[in-house]
Amino acid sequence: MTKTKIDVTLSATRKEKPKSDQLEFGRVFTDHMFVMDYSPAKGWHDPKIVPYEPITLSPASMVFHYGQTVFEGLKAYRTKEDKVLLFRPEKNMERLNLSNDRLCIPRIDGEFVIEALKQLVSIEKDWIPTAEGTSLYIRPFIIPTEYYLGVAPSKFYRFMIILSPVGSYYKEGIHPVKIYVENHYVRAVEGGTGKAKTGGNYASSLRAQEEAAQKGYSQVLWLDGVEKKYIEEVGSMNIFFKINGEVVTPEVNGSILEGVTRKSILELLKSWETPVSERKISMEEVYQAYKDGQLEEAFGTGTAAVISPIGEFLYDDNKIVINNGETGELSKKLYDTLTGIQKGTKQDPFNWVTEVK
Amino acid sequence: MTKTKIDVTLSATRKEKPKSDQLEFGRVFTDHMFVMDYSPAKGWHDPKIVPYEPITLSPASMVFHYGQTVFEGLKAYRTKEDKVLLFRPEKNMERLNLSNDRLCIPRIDGEFVIEALKQLVSIEKDWIPTAEGTSLYIRPFIIPTEYYLGVAPSKFYRFMIILSPVGSYYKEGIHPVKIYVENHYVRAVEGGTGKAKTGGNYASSLRAQEEAAQKGYSQVLWLDGVEKKYIEEVGSMNIFFKINGEVVTPEVNGSILEGVTRKSILELLKSWETPVSERKISMEEVYQAYKDGQLEEAFGTGTAAVISPIGEFLYDDNKIVINNGETGELSKKLYDTLTGIQKGTKQDPFNWVTEVK
Repeated sequence: MTKTKIDVTLSATRKEKPKSDQLEFGRVFTDHMFVMDYSPAKGWHDPKIVPYEPITLSPASMVFHYGQTVFEGLKAYRTKEDKVLLFRPEKNMERLNLSNDRLCIPRIDGEFVIEALKQLVSIEKDWIPTAEGTSLYIRPFIIPTEYYLGVAPSKFYRFMIILSPVGSYYKEGIHPVKIYVENHYVRAVEGGTGKAKTGGNYASSLRAQEEAAQKGYSQVLWLDGVEKKYIEEVGSMNIFFKINGEVVTPEVNGSILEGVTRKSILELLKSWETPVSERKISMEEVYQAYKDGQLEEAFGTGTAAVISPIGEFLYDDNKIVINNGETGELSKKLYDTLTGIQKGTKQDPFNWVTEVK
Repeated sequence: MTKTKIDVTLSATRKEKPKSDQLEFGRVFTDHMFVMDYSPAKGWHDPKIVPYEPITLSPASMVFHYGQTVFEGLKAYRTKEDKVLLFRPEKNMERLNLSNDRLCIPRIDGEFVIEALKQLVSIEKDWIPTAEGTSLYIRPFIIPTEYYLGVAPSKFYRFMIILSPVGSYYKEGIHPVKIYVENHYVRAVEGGTGKAKTGGNYASSLRAQEEAAQKGYSQVLWLDGVEKKYIEEVGSMNIFFKINGEVVTPEVNGSILEGVTRKSILELLKSWETPVSERKISMEEVYQAYKDGQLEEAFGTGTAAVISPIGEFLYDDNKIVINNGETGELSKKLYDTLTGIQKGTKQDPFNWVTEVK
């Protein structure tokens, strides 16, 4: 597969590009996309870059009925020297294949897809914004395309990559968010699909998210589905706490998503010799640390927002205000370092960044 | 909304209908479908019956990314007197709205949709097969259609009804199936989406189903996600046991689907004065009943298969063979009664059946 040629058809027309200061998240898409199909006889075949255009599917297509979808999210950045950089794309491809395994979707060739992705990004280079906080968001995804209403894995699939120039995930940029600790709804449980990046996990989160928003909180903190005691993740991000000088994040347990940003933050902290541990942590422990004056910072991590500082939790009826509701020193340093590496303004001692030639 | 006129456009061509004895489940679709759209400004609007045709959507359409879908399944039957009957469609509409609530999708007007459904079925009357075990399967479903990659409820939706003439769900007809008691994967947990009919629940079940099939079992029995002790449901059906003369089914607990067939079976059994209870039941209790010679029957219930007798469970390493692997007397009686009511060959004391005029 790695040797397969990617067929390229360029668009006859080009869309107008949005202004850098008017970018939202995930609303505008570039002129081209990557498409590749799967059939039992041919495997993944017919990889091609084509004009961005609608998909036409039978109403009986399995994607409309049984949610057998997976996706990834990563970003391309354009440096001051006009280089185009990707951040750890191989980690996204590894995770995509773990999601594929869980959802009974045939694995993709990660190396080949990274090549395809680079070719696509290179064609769309002029779409990559350069202003502070902006980037080109890359969305690889797989949908089942068989026309069948039986509950079974699809026999046919379509893999696509679409690109969207984006501003900051939060319109206000990096600034602390208020989080509602969810005590009724559950995101995932061990043995379920929590560690896969599949549509159902996001669909099931919407209701809690809406109810939290009505209470004035911008995201929810998910607790474990068994005891509703242990912290899992926040919204669609992983979560970190700084308690009495030590950074703590929930351990990988089969129900949380293993974020690429999470992994990178852990590696950064270890390189700085900051005390850090991955372990079970209960909301009660966080609340106790707060009461003892030891809860110094909290932040979410993810591709879309990179670092999202947390200014307040509502835990049952208790308000937990962190660092006076302001961005903590460590959160800021991690944000600056990671976005600096991603945008090529800071050294990359880990070789995380790949240039698109 | 109930007063809205449904616009009808008939197809210029008609497809060839499959032979009754060659029908599978959910592979062939009729000539027309019902479509209705939702926007924040207009609510549900523009209801229409149109030729069955593909849907065209942007690759950024939320349905391809975040699994915010719901669906229903019910059947139309054609009697010997050439009447067309529906079985409790109002129950499906009630459940569709419960699913909508859980998935943040705007509610539909159930009465209006039943009218639309009757009109569609009436147009497609010649597609309803009459042979034993056959029917016209009706699939109402809702998909999000906004073009946006943010994790939030879609602002736009499409509601559709498609129809498929079907044979028996199991090709072999009513005959006992072998079930694998799942001790690793979990279908749903309280606080999740288990009681909603949404794609993600089905996507998450595929892997366990595949592994069970490799071991020679046709479905899995799901245990609760917290203790992995209590019985939830089987494959995509509810489950019943007959133990020492009493019929037991897991109680509605927030994580099982509340099946229309389940409800009807409970009402039938009560009318027969058969001892029946809805309660927590553990797999250990079922195994003990088996060892004591008191496990008389087990069967799954659902729209697709109606009644699916269970001949064997594999529970860890223990084979539990029920009624010598043959269809039990009660399972058979329930199947005959319920399908008799559905097909109009048996009295309908409950007024479950609605005629399509």
